[in-house]
Amino acid sequence: MEEKKTAHQLLADSIKFVLVGTTHPGNIGASARAIKTMGLSKLFLVNPKDFPNDVAFYRAKAAKDVLEQAEIHPDLFSATKDCELIIGTSARNRKIPWPLVSPREASQEIVQALQQGVNKVAVVFGREDRGLTNEELGMCNLHVHIPTNEEYSSLNLSQAVQILSYETRLAMLEHYDLVEKPEWDVELADNEQTERLITHLDELMQEVNFYDTQNPRKLLTRVRRFFKRARIDKMEANIFRGLFSAVQKNLRK
Amino acid sequence: MEEKKTAHQLLADSIKFVLVGTTHPGNIGASARAIKTMGLSKLFLVNPKDFPNDVAFYRAKAAKDVLEQAEIHPDLFSATKDCELIIGTSARNRKIPWPLVSPREASQEIVQALQQGVNKVAVVFGREDRGLTNEELGMCNLHVHIPTNEEYSSLNLSQAVQILSYETRLAMLEHYDLVEKPEWDVELADNEQTERLITHLDELMQEVNFYDTQNPRKLLTRVRRFFKRARIDKMEANIFRGLFSAVQKNLRK
Repeated sequence: MEEKKTAHQLLADSIKFVLVGTTHPGNIGASARAIKTMGLSKLFLVNPKDFPNDVAFYRAKAAKDVLEQAEIHPDLFSATKDCELIIGTSARNRKIPWPLVSPREASQEIVQALQQGVNKVAVVFGREDRGLTNEELGMCNLHVHIPTNEEYSSLNLSQAVQILSYETRLAMLEHYDLVEKPEWDVELADNEQTERLITHLDELMQEVNFYDTQNPRKLLTRVRRFFKRARIDKMEANIFRGLFSAVQKNLRK
Repeated sequence: MEEKKTAHQLLADSIKFVLVGTTHPGNIGASARAIKTMGLSKLFLVNPKDFPNDVAFYRAKAAKDVLEQAEIHPDLFSATKDCELIIGTSARNRKIPWPLVSPREASQEIVQALQQGVNKVAVVFGREDRGLTNEELGMCNLHVHIPTNEEYSSLNLSQAVQILSYETRLAMLEHYDLVEKPEWDVELADNEQTERLITHLDELMQEVNFYDTQNPRKLLTRVRRFFKRARIDKMEANIFRGLFSAVQKNLRK
């Protein structure tokens, strides 16, 4: 429980998403919603063209609190002064290559940094049309590139925010072993039960002369493979057994 | 090259994203753009409330071709008749649990199925407000749940589409070993070069009496650790060596 609290607090408190020079307020609102669905809360806006704006609040839906608390800064340096790890989104093709990672690697870098005592991390997103300037990219420790379609790489800003916040949440949940495993409501049938089910079905098939008992092999193997592969659970097996019995009772009348 | 073509063709041809009962045409357009950035092309619309609509085409940006080719169907069965694997997005909490996977597991299931000869896969997204009905979810082989913030799980439809298409692209690129590794433009310095750099810096530090030569240990270790950790490249090492020499020349004047 303590660990869980820590993971969720790190997501909410230690990681800021910084949008630089955003033109469309709708993208700011959609980004606020995107990060909140992933448990993040800190949105920083560097020199937004049109904010505050009703469109941003409309698109944020129930993430209006993220927008209300968003810090507005005149430049990237001012927005990231307290950050010890800065990751900038990049479309690549820079003259001098910078350390470049995938979104998944970036999120692992973030988790690792926070484990090693880093207090503040920034993930930085550029303008809709031109991304980050070379000067802004030069302020980053790492660049992250989303592996888009080479023929159409124009990802919407809030979609890029969604992918990076999703990967960050996932890496954090994985690190704290908080990934929920789906539960099945019924135990799987054990081998004895499964074998009895198959035998019962075989009995029924013979009762209706469904196959040539002189040459049954392939059919029975396929039936067997189906139930084994499907990993039938105890209740499903009981349903089939009950059905077979009811059918047999009616046949024998 | 042949392998590459296959991976990209599978993404474009074998996987359809199906939006059921979408209310807002903007979400349809944003979804078209989302899947195209990830190399997918097949969008199916089941009973959309308001389509075709200019808003959808506006939000699709350069993915208008995806919208123009979108198939419209009256119900989910009609849209998925030819599919051998159907994955439905779900908010969980169903009375009878269905096989439930994460987006990452879902994408691996898709790749595996295509490798095993499956021709058509559908990933199905429900209505903005109510998701998929129990009947629609019952038509799926697997359910996928995006691990959202428990306190605010309301992911926008096109954002869910972006995450699933991103994971699908990634799984496909990984399977075909097409994940691009970033290239560095210069070779890393070898051990001899790095050691000479450290020695040179030490020489310079002594020349300006920067430390007590009787007790230098910690300082030198920290300098050494920095250059080793940074994994300096050949050109960077040359720049520092050149600078140290220039400084020494000036000092000795």
